[in-house]
Amino acid sequence: NKSNADKNSDDPYAKDPARHPFFIVNNPRPFNAEPPPELLLDAGFITPNDLYYVRNHLPVPDVDPDKYRLHVEVEGKGARCVQYSLADLKTKFPQVKVVTAIQCAGNRREDMTNVKPVKGLGWSCGAISNSEWTGVLLRDVLEHAGVNVNDPESSGIEHVQFEGLDRDLTTCYGSSIPAGMAVDPKGDVLLAFEMNGEPIPRDHGFPVRAVVPGVVGARNVKWLDKVIASKEESKNHWQQKDYKGFNSSTDWDTADFSKSPAIQQLPINSAILSPADGSSVSQYDDEVTVKGYAVAGGGRAVVRVDVSADGGETWTSAELKPTSQPLYRTWAWTLWEASLPVPKGKGEMKLVCKAVDAGYNSQPERPEPIWNIRGVLSNSWHRVGLKVEDE
Amino acid sequence: NKSNADKNSDDPYAKDPARHPFFIVNNPRPFNAEPPPELLLDAGFITPNDLYYVRNHLPVPDVDPDKYRLHVEVEGKGARCVQYSLADLKTKFPQVKVVTAIQCAGNRREDMTNVKPVKGLGWSCGAISNSEWTGVLLRDVLEHAGVNVNDPESSGIEHVQFEGLDRDLTTCYGSSIPAGMAVDPKGDVLLAFEMNGEPIPRDHGFPVRAVVPGVVGARNVKWLDKVIASKEESKNHWQQKDYKGFNSSTDWDTADFSKSPAIQQLPINSAILSPADGSSVSQYDDEVTVKGYAVAGGGRAVVRVDVSADGGETWTSAELKPTSQPLYRTWAWTLWEASLPVPKGKGEMKLVCKAVDAGYNSQPERPEPIWNIRGVLSNSWHRVGLKVEDE
Ligand SMILES: [Mo]
Ligand SMILES: [Mo]
Repeated sequence: NKSNADKNSDDPYAKDPARHPFFIVNNPRPFNAEPPPELLLDAGFITPNDLYYVRNHLPVPDVDPDKYRLHVEVEGKGARCVQYSLADLKTKFPQVKVVTAIQCAGNRREDMTNVKPVKGLGWSCGAISNSEWTGVLLRDVLEHAGVNVNDPESSGIEHVQFEGLDRDLTTCYGSSIPAGMAVDPKGDVLLAFEMNGEPIPRDHGFPVRAVVPGVVGARNVKWLDKVIASKEESKNHWQQKDYKGFNSSTDWDTADFSKSPAIQQLPINSAILSPADGSSVSQYDDEVTVKGYAVAGGGRAVVRVDVSADGGETWTSAELKPTSQPLYRTWAWTLWEASLPVPKGKGEMKLVCKAVDAGYNSQPERPEPIWNIRGVLSNSWHRVGLKVEDE
Repeated sequence: NKSNADKNSDDPYAKDPARHPFFIVNNPRPFNAEPPPELLLDAGFITPNDLYYVRNHLPVPDVDPDKYRLHVEVEGKGARCVQYSLADLKTKFPQVKVVTAIQCAGNRREDMTNVKPVKGLGWSCGAISNSEWTGVLLRDVLEHAGVNVNDPESSGIEHVQFEGLDRDLTTCYGSSIPAGMAVDPKGDVLLAFEMNGEPIPRDHGFPVRAVVPGVVGARNVKWLDKVIASKEESKNHWQQKDYKGFNSSTDWDTADFSKSPAIQQLPINSAILSPADGSSVSQYDDEVTVKGYAVAGGGRAVVRVDVSADGGETWTSAELKPTSQPLYRTWAWTLWEASLPVPKGKGEMKLVCKAVDAGYNSQPERPEPIWNIRGVLSNSWHRVGLKVEDE
């Protein structure tokens, strides 16, 4: 005896918010979408909220901010649980602003899929965005809840788990980070409540999410329900059975997830956002301006981006736009551009970019040797082909 | 009117110590030498003092330990200089032991030289060693000398410079590390006076050297004369005009050293120490056991080493010997081994290794795209060819 209207309310995705019409949607339910490269580029250093890539694992929770409580559990000796309202978080702790990129483990997965099919959403190079978050330091909240933040391991706290309010009948989204990261005074890990100066939009974790600079999106848990200071890593599916790397000869039968560490920092990566792959230039143009982003894990700045117009034979170092963040505490992405002469009489121009981080890590040349069953960690040289037209 | 005996005393290298007869000597003056791979491997996890690779930039100082003083200068407001005798260091501060690899920026340079000549010593894969150092925390000494070690930048201290007692007529060896690294409570940066339980041998910095875990050998300054807490990076030649990376199209005319950051953390690297390149196996053997090391910068553990017997088409993950250091505070190298089936009827076996660190950084496939004028940062896949013999 259900009406049509009632049917709609059975749909767990019925209350998902409206989204930008220009998004490239990789999956409608749960919603996963990336902005088109030209819009991501045009937006510049700070990605606006409505263009920010969306990576949801479950339906978007509908949270009443007045009733919202963050539960902070401290396990072990003197175990306790402290609840914080949104007002508590905003008034009991100093507020901090951090500009950071957040990047999906599957960003640029399409380059791996082109080698051999993988299990995962078909992200191009837009599963990354960069914005300013306002919140309070996770370190401060943990200290208030009774964690020895100067040496958590000595009291048996080795991981800080996050659980989201996003759930289905059997599970919620969850994951964890090592305790040392959570309490690092230079780590800038936030419990955030604003994104680019506004309350965090529903798709991005309203009212409170974890922001873990320098660490894969999967640990930046949205719609935070619980923070658990624990001896144990999160037992959640997305910590244990997903978001891990394997060698390229490993298949689903031979993959042993228990032997591979959960992805935290992502490797150095970069992409060309303009010009678009397959577009044309005139051979009477002197130069093509190439633009894109580069980003590294763990706070390592991008120190160099090399760009090639001949498929990787010769290289020019691009001009990097300064982030104003310190060399070993750079959380933001680095935008770059380079002007490359148009080759005459060849009919094509093979653009390539590759970046180097402050630890002098570089990107692998081809996707094949880093291919893995989940198509994560896709950071091979980014290649864009242009037609050079005779007119 | 000089006698023959006097001539000898004009030689600044005349007082250099005796060395292991089996060293592969890359330069006699200043002395630079690496242990043969089979000896480095046989020694195991801890490299003994007499086999430890030697990288000297100048003659070895001859220091009287009783007269030795470490000068700690703090620049800026309230500038001061505090002197510490060896006894002061040993008694005023808690002693700490750290096992760390130290690796030369030029380790594995020969792979780059094989592409195109570079300026630098011809290191094979033995410009790395791993040992236990005993000393006091640089953090503790800086604090004692008056540095605000919890936030040095706020009082204008952005770098910690080191100057060695090794010098020629015009200069001493020197370099610096960012202040944040120097005072990181989890960074384990030492002023060391023992190496594997013995006073540090003369070639390795007697009586006191800097040990900066996770950072290139060049910053682990030996025979420490001065530690200078400063607003400025070291102006020393080896900080400013050497030990920096450039793209592979940059030559000595176009290299702008001011635009490239001094190498601190080194990228993920690995090498096969056995079997030796060019050696033979029988095609009637089932398997070949391959052994080597892997190491990453910045305390990132080695989480995987992949080994191939077919030049990189298919991969097996090697067995890693645990270091017992935490995932993000792993300073030691990781020794590994793998058994690979001998291919039948092909006449050769193309061994390759590549490693992955806890930030999921990987090694580049070929040396060409990372080639640079100084031949530093050589971390492409390590390749060893074996003959498979029909007998
Ligand atoms: Mo993700
Ligand atoms: Mo070095």
